[in-house]
Amino acid sequence: MRINANRLLNGLAELAAIGALPGGGVQRLAFTPEDLRGRDYVAGRLRLLGLEPRVDAVGNLFAIRPGTEAHAPVVLIGSHTDTVGSGGRFDGALGVLAALEILARLQEELVQTRFPVGLVSFVNEEGARFMPDMMGSLYLRGDLDTDAVRRIAGTDGSTIGDNLDQLGMAGTDSLIGVPLRAFLELHIEQGPELEGLNLPAGVVTGVQGLRWMEVRLKGRSNHAGTTPMANREDAGLVAAQITAAVRRLALDTPGLRGTVGRITLRPNLINVIPSEAALTVDLRHPSQESLDNAVAKMKADILTLAAKEGVTCQIEETASAPAVEFDPDVVAAVEAGMESLGLEPHGLISGAGHDAQILAAQCPAAMVFVRSRDGISHNPREFTSDDDCVTGADILLQAVLHLAKV
Amino acid sequence: MRINANRLLNGLAELAAIGALPGGGVQRLAFTPEDLRGRDYVAGRLRLLGLEPRVDAVGNLFAIRPGTEAHAPVVLIGSHTDTVGSGGRFDGALGVLAALEILARLQEELVQTRFPVGLVSFVNEEGARFMPDMMGSLYLRGDLDTDAVRRIAGTDGSTIGDNLDQLGMAGTDSLIGVPLRAFLELHIEQGPELEGLNLPAGVVTGVQGLRWMEVRLKGRSNHAGTTPMANREDAGLVAAQITAAVRRLALDTPGLRGTVGRITLRPNLINVIPSEAALTVDLRHPSQESLDNAVAKMKADILTLAAKEGVTCQIEETASAPAVEFDPDVVAAVEAGMESLGLEPHGLISGAGHDAQILAAQCPAAMVFVRSRDGISHNPREFTSDDDCVTGADILLQAVLHLAKV
Repeated sequence: MRINANRLLNGLAELAAIGALPGGGVQRLAFTPEDLRGRDYVAGRLRLLGLEPRVDAVGNLFAIRPGTEAHAPVVLIGSHTDTVGSGGRFDGALGVLAALEILARLQEELVQTRFPVGLVSFVNEEGARFMPDMMGSLYLRGDLDTDAVRRIAGTDGSTIGDNLDQLGMAGTDSLIGVPLRAFLELHIEQGPELEGLNLPAGVVTGVQGLRWMEVRLKGRSNHAGTTPMANREDAGLVAAQITAAVRRLALDTPGLRGTVGRITLRPNLINVIPSEAALTVDLRHPSQESLDNAVAKMKADILTLAAKEGVTCQIEETASAPAVEFDPDVVAAVEAGMESLGLEPHGLISGAGHDAQILAAQCPAAMVFVRSRDGISHNPREFTSDDDCVTGADILLQAVLHLAKV
Repeated sequence: MRINANRLLNGLAELAAIGALPGGGVQRLAFTPEDLRGRDYVAGRLRLLGLEPRVDAVGNLFAIRPGTEAHAPVVLIGSHTDTVGSGGRFDGALGVLAALEILARLQEELVQTRFPVGLVSFVNEEGARFMPDMMGSLYLRGDLDTDAVRRIAGTDGSTIGDNLDQLGMAGTDSLIGVPLRAFLELHIEQGPELEGLNLPAGVVTGVQGLRWMEVRLKGRSNHAGTTPMANREDAGLVAAQITAAVRRLALDTPGLRGTVGRITLRPNLINVIPSEAALTVDLRHPSQESLDNAVAKMKADILTLAAKEGVTCQIEETASAPAVEFDPDVVAAVEAGMESLGLEPHGLISGAGHDAQILAAQCPAAMVFVRSRDGISHNPREFTSDDDCVTGADILLQAVLHLAKV
């Protein structure tokens, strides 16, 4: 059995029209009218399949197609339909539409599975308007309750509760407590690995751990012309040295990714030695131990560099996500699916965060990645070919059949 | 003959009260009511001495005490009374008040000098509200004419012409064409050299040359988690590497001062590789040749660093001031003045810009520096002790007597 390629691709085009930006790209920020219209599109398609769309108290959409065995745990598939402010048409949308397509094929072929197959479209995966990201899956996992979610204020000051009520976006159903046999998510890679290897798709075996630090440096502002080099306490220089050290550490540590994305100097004037600098350090590694070692090494380097220049330094850890290893059985189901389609299974690590890594603590989980052009995402130029989208959905279908039919 | 220490110090306190900031410090931004009140204070003191205050078309204040020889060139002394937005009470003010004090002593002692002695208080030396800085001396030297000055728009969008007219701050006299025997300026050092040597004052033998560059880097923004280290075009990293390279070059080149005061990244987000960076490079050296070599070396380094990371790079030179050597005879007059007061003459280079370096192209010039505490200036914490202020003014007086009486 294969998916219906035309229907999948038409669905991608129809969903991309909701919140389409003038110059290309899509904006369906979480808890906005466009976000709701995107969810309604999926709900409408579910109804056409004879499946009841259900919504929980924070806006997660789901539907369950029963299996032959009563009370059997659900094979859940899906992703999200919200986007960043200037997003592409594939991130999230592809995973939800592929899940929809799989339910459509099961319905029209009257396939009987032993385990129920469920679709979920998680709310606010991106976290662009309201933090944290991956909110819908965190809610399902129990990390956030309804009240906690509703109280969260966003970039415009309004709360999620206000937005849910105004849009009539909250429901009364819930996936919480529903036993899950597996969670599977199809997503674009958002990186260049598959493209570099000339592969359409791969199985994601784990997600990099992440640790974020915010470093605040305090030196002394002084005249750039009159202050001898030996008398300086240049916070900007130390910020630059830390940035270079992050790169060196990443190059010296296999598997480590290190980024300084934000640097802010004060007073930030051409002829004044910076008295203050703030910068962020983003470190990621698939192995938790290697990640923790890198953070410890970087902290020590930062203290040394600051002390050498007479600059004081504060390091705050602002975020941390553990490295996740996906479930070997679910990974094997995806690999079997790839092999059944004549594809060589290639395992890779996700660099970005996904709902699947949240659910991995709760049930066996894994992901399918499809090739991204130039590794670009969160950008109107995000692109995955029609063929690769179809291949990814077919892999997901085979894995679902494998996990649900047995 | 010595200056009247009490009168000098009282003058400093009175002038500091004009535009005094609540938490300490002074704000007399050029072409504001406070600036005019500062100038009026000096003009009023001149009148009390029986000297006519005169004002030119751009607001420079001057007065000339005749010598015995008709049409003899003037020994001009002075500085400025405008300040930066949050300035101290010594920068500029001390030089003008010392000049006033010298004229007062000549008047009350009925000293007959062969050459006339003139006081000047230059308008807009700081350039905090209207660029360029050292505007009053540039006007006197002929680099800017009246119309050019009046057309200049400031940080609030208004022109100098608007401000001059509104305040009634322009006059009809002019120093242009008046022959100058010498220009001498007393100023705080704004650096730590004299304090480090435990000296109250020194003679300034030259001013560092300065060259400013603005560097714009363009890479590619990408996801910090998914983009392998080898696939990055990180404009922020290159900005950091340039900052570190500026420091290394300054440490490797005796006499060079190098500062990166401003760094701005885009999009400046923790988990996005910066696509754009802009930074400024401020290089200064007392020798023009060494300065030019340093700029050439730095430009080459910048291009190499950017190319290595696949980042494109634009370098714009935004300002340049030539290295200035002060006149040996005027320097000798200051040294003789120091020796007559029992002080060991110590020569030093100015790191900051001053009106004296502008006039040095037009007439013999030099400066006297007095010790700054912690090298701090352009700051309410700027401080020079009463004793050092008095010593500086006494040195200036001896040098003026030497140059004007002969």
